[in-house]
Amino acid sequence: MSRLPSLIALDWGTTNLHCYRIGDGGAVMDHRDWPLGIMQIADGDFAAALERAMKPWQPLPPEIPIIASGMIGSRQGWKEVPYALCPAGLDDIAKVMVPVEWNGRRVWLVPGVSCIDGRGIPDVIRGEEVQIFGAAGDASPEQALFVIPGTHSKWVVVQKGRIVRFATFMTGEMFAVLKGHSILGRMMQGAAVDEAAFRRGVEEAKAVGGRLLHSLFGVRTLGLFGKLPEAEAAGYLSGLLIGTELLEAPAVLGFEGRTPPLVLIGQAGLARHYGAAANSLGLAIREAAPDGAAAGLWRLACTIGLVKEVA
Amino acid sequence: MSRLPSLIALDWGTTNLHCYRIGDGGAVMDHRDWPLGIMQIADGDFAAALERAMKPWQPLPPEIPIIASGMIGSRQGWKEVPYALCPAGLDDIAKVMVPVEWNGRRVWLVPGVSCIDGRGIPDVIRGEEVQIFGAAGDASPEQALFVIPGTHSKWVVVQKGRIVRFATFMTGEMFAVLKGHSILGRMMQGAAVDEAAFRRGVEEAKAVGGRLLHSLFGVRTLGLFGKLPEAEAAGYLSGLLIGTELLEAPAVLGFEGRTPPLVLIGQAGLARHYGAAANSLGLAIREAAPDGAAAGLWRLACTIGLVKEVA
Repeated sequence: MSRLPSLIALDWGTTNLHCYRIGDGGAVMDHRDWPLGIMQIADGDFAAALERAMKPWQPLPPEIPIIASGMIGSRQGWKEVPYALCPAGLDDIAKVMVPVEWNGRRVWLVPGVSCIDGRGIPDVIRGEEVQIFGAAGDASPEQALFVIPGTHSKWVVVQKGRIVRFATFMTGEMFAVLKGHSILGRMMQGAAVDEAAFRRGVEEAKAVGGRLLHSLFGVRTLGLFGKLPEAEAAGYLSGLLIGTELLEAPAVLGFEGRTPPLVLIGQAGLARHYGAAANSLGLAIREAAPDGAAAGLWRLACTIGLVKEVA
Repeated sequence: MSRLPSLIALDWGTTNLHCYRIGDGGAVMDHRDWPLGIMQIADGDFAAALERAMKPWQPLPPEIPIIASGMIGSRQGWKEVPYALCPAGLDDIAKVMVPVEWNGRRVWLVPGVSCIDGRGIPDVIRGEEVQIFGAAGDASPEQALFVIPGTHSKWVVVQKGRIVRFATFMTGEMFAVLKGHSILGRMMQGAAVDEAAFRRGVEEAKAVGGRLLHSLFGVRTLGLFGKLPEAEAAGYLSGLLIGTELLEAPAVLGFEGRTPPLVLIGQAGLARHYGAAANSLGLAIREAAPDGAAAGLWRLACTIGLVKEVA
């Protein structure tokens, strides 16, 4: 294997910049994370940020292509790349990639994907599409359902290699604003998620059928009556919210009663919680292989001929 | 009618102190509001606050009774009054009233009411019980359903003169934290509720069956795609939330499919929105007579013999 990479792949989000140095055939040679997400770059000088992140990997001959997915292609990023519309496969996404100039070479920005539901309400992903194509790999099952938890959780349906529809759930942000700014936050000590309290929250979400405007108030009243210690309240709230997401999502995506197994893409901590909640609710779930972004960006680079699929 | 009142009735909440000077037979002679809610009284000197509020009505002979409901009887108030447990009628509430000394006389503090649902989760009201008994009047229908919108909306079921169960919905607080602290707030200009946008939010809540974690994200995506002007986003969010409350509440209270007509107790602005949302969702609704707190406190004073029902 050559010591030079075949591709530099960047998963460039709001908070972090994940860099992958990829060799022949798509193998990850090196991986570095930088706290250089687009919201961390106050002056908008993305070129300088990339300079900094690439320093350890210099010299980088100009013929080595660079590809970047995520919020770097948003209105707040380096250059806005229009969304590819569902149904969208690798080829549809590759078609609308947009280059920016950097040090006399090109950095290819990957578009996000948009869909519009039956009532005309749009939804968007940006960066997750690449993680999904990486996790899905070449095997194109008839249908798969991916879940990417986070500030805005994404549930994405893939059919025969194309993203056909998806929906966003504000679970993580809801937890943050309720903990930080509502009366519920006053009932809490610490942000650690107690596992038993988490399960209790999931069970309550199930019993009350989600119904968050009511069920959330239980965080307060259970606390008032000495039935939920302050150290457990954050876990209970997390369980209520994630449980509710797992109840809402299959219905929103039209799977009621026959949800396919969930494929979970995410960090270990969150993945464990989603796994526990899915088990409580009788949903089958498995974790995707890690480094999905690198694999997805490699597949995309192959699709548009930036690299050769086989060395 | 004597120029002296028969009763001083105080509806003493978190933000405001509403004072009623009530004459023979329960007629309100005078009504004054003060910005002296318990959270406004930093030093906790409730006696001095009451001194200030009663000044215009001096001299006040010591034989004229004073009764106060609301958060003044909470842990953060003048003295904590334990909750009366559901089912609770006027007599049950009167039984657990607690006096505090003020200027050598007594101020009677009214308890709140608590209930516990089938899964052991408590809920509480404090002050609303008095408004409801005032609005219900002497007529004791077989069953009535009261709605008191606000930061924490209260839905209360009354059967034969007793509060039998109720549920709280965090609608108003959810609106405030999402507008003030979430990504949705960035899509908004102004807090005014555009009526057409409000109805659109209600319709979407209905179409998606509440499911807030997902439906809320529409505030962002509709804005991103130019389908929801910033000036209308607050109204749409309000419609989504109030619509969802009206979907959740009948189910939480066990009324699915046969909800009794709603009796709405509240300020004019909110009442209009709830009325519009109820109409969209096919729920019958009417507004209660104003000054329910004064009427309820009068009935309570009669029940424990502080005043005579008929002059």
